[in-house]
Amino acid sequence: MTLDLPLALDLLGVFFFAVSGSLLAARKGFDLVGSVLLGSMVGLGGGVLRDIILADGPPAAFSNPIYLVPPLAAAALVYFTVKNVQRSGRLLFMFDAGGLALFCITGSLKALEAGMTPVAAILLGVTTAVGGGILRDITANEVPKVFDPQDLYAIPALIGAALATGLWHLGWLNLATGTVAAVAVFAMRMLSLRYGWRAPLAARSWAPRLPRRR
Amino acid sequence: MTLDLPLALDLLGVFFFAVSGSLLAARKGFDLVGSVLLGSMVGLGGGVLRDIILADGPPAAFSNPIYLVPPLAAAALVYFTVKNVQRSGRLLFMFDAGGLALFCITGSLKALEAGMTPVAAILLGVTTAVGGGILRDITANEVPKVFDPQDLYAIPALIGAALATGLWHLGWLNLATGTVAAVAVFAMRMLSLRYGWRAPLAARSWAPRLPRRR
Amino acid sequence: MTLDLPLALDLLGVFFFAVSGSLLAARKGFDLVGSVLLGSMVGLGGGVLRDIILADGPPAAFSNPIYLVPPLAAAALVYFTVKNVQRSGRLLFMFDAGGLALFCITGSLKALEAGMTPVAAILLGVTTAVGGGILRDITANEVPKVFDPQDLYAIPALIGAALATGLWHLGWLNLATGTVAAVAVFAMRMLSLRYGWRAPLAARSWAPRLPRRR
Repeated sequence: MTLDLPLALDLLGVFFFAVSGSLLAARKGFDLVGSVLLGSMVGLGGGVLRDIILADGPPAAFSNPIYLVPPLAAAALVYFTVKNVQRSGRLLFMFDAGGLALFCITGSLKALEAGMTPVAAILLGVTTAVGGGILRDITANEVPKVFDPQDLYAIPALIGAALATGLWHLGWLNLATGTVAAVAVFAMRMLSLRYGWRAPLAARSWAPRLPRRR
Repeated sequence: MTLDLPLALDLLGVFFFAVSGSLLAARKGFDLVGSVLLGSMVGLGGGVLRDIILADGPPAAFSNPIYLVPPLAAAALVYFTVKNVQRSGRLLFMFDAGGLALFCITGSLKALEAGMTPVAAILLGVTTAVGGGILRDITANEVPKVFDPQDLYAIPALIGAALATGLWHLGWLNLATGTVAAVAVFAMRMLSLRYGWRAPLAARSWAPRLPRRR
Repeated sequence: MTLDLPLALDLLGVFFFAVSGSLLAARKGFDLVGSVLLGSMVGLGGGVLRDIILADGPPAAFSNPIYLVPPLAAAALVYFTVKNVQRSGRLLFMFDAGGLALFCITGSLKALEAGMTPVAAILLGVTTAVGGGILRDITANEVPKVFDPQDLYAIPALIGAALATGLWHLGWLNLATGTVAAVAVFAMRMLSLRYGWRAPLAARSWAPRLPRRR
């Protein structure tokens, strides 16, 4: 069974990530152009990387102009509605989690539809989901969220990508099950932030005491 | 009507950006090898990204060895002529602006010749023009120039890419009109630096007072 | 004469670089997931870039799951064996040098087998060798090793890539000569670290006194 990749879900993921980029742009004191640009890099970066890796012609973000709408809408939303930039941290985390949740699903799907193996599809789902955020944080000169040891980030994306790939192979993937999977990823990410769920540190012997964030 | 992409203009753009990279390498205290490397990343990075996105075989910078000449020439120029590294800031901005002006034109052109739509061509022109500089500044651990809210950077590139795309569709693009467009982009960028032309900040409500640069 | 690219050597290079990534992850206080991720970025980044530039279908790291083994093994090794993270600096340099030595050889080979010219093959060998490390250091918010003026990094890679390309054209490249070339690159890199071999600075006129590292 194949499933047409729901373009709407992909665009929604772009929008969520673009909002996170525009919020960071606002916090860093960038201007509106920088806001559109950083939002585009975060929202479109992961998908462009995915399409380049799939080696199947120019990335969708360049060949289909509709992909420009979410970053423009995100920059406008942030411009008009954000009242207190310094307190927008929680909002940034929420929109980032939304993008993560959608992209691990749509990224895996696009890879499966391009004929990749399940392992490659999961890998590409994770790459799509974490790629844009890494680009955002590196550009703004911060250590990427995915490397913050105080919560889980890649693990929910990995679980979401594996879920989507499994459902697809069983022929059970549709808008309903895909949405449930995305919501589960989002919830896992937000709960890990709320309750400080952590993975073990990279070296067993070394456990510096880290302060809780916020 | 199609226009042969003037290789000379493309190489000149590579040279300008490469000089900006080698100047930054000198300011950071990198060695001559780092100067060639950073110059290559800035000068060739945007075009390599463009060619990868166009998905039309190996990037020109790798398949045509002549692209290695500008970065080597730029590193040599900086090595032999720069007397006072600390005072080379203005020079760096000028060469960067030269690269920006040429790349938004040649980037759009190459996309149009590859059969991309006008919107995609403009987008790719801007990507080519700002891509190398973002790579340069991230590598040197600085916030990319394109995100500095104290002047305009992406706007002149956008106007240049739109101009080139419009002229191309009208069949009016040639060496003369292309050069005029590039000079206009360069002038707009330099004037925005001189007079502090700014775009509105990313969040309307937040306007920290920023000191004028220099 | 063509030579089958020894997959084992490529995987060994991935492993060396992945260990350097996991060691840096440990030093930065990242968690085990970040260790796998940073190790993957360093170990697979250069090769993915190489395969994207060769424009020959999806990169090997995505289409062949065996490429996931070295980063997982590297993260496990670092997790279980590193006793003193703060003193692992020398180890990080050694594994990084091992990756550099293997990748300049295997990167050139893969380019030659894809039909690239000698110059392009050398260029791509260097790009593969230095690409992953640049990605690693940028992500961890450090100036990339390749730009450290206190020793040689790109020069040994360049010599290794040129050696491999020359040997290949003479029909003399095999496991034995390839290994000798890789060992020579590794030795050159380590000796440059030990004895502080340096290239001239990027600007002749500017020679700030730099302290010896360590």
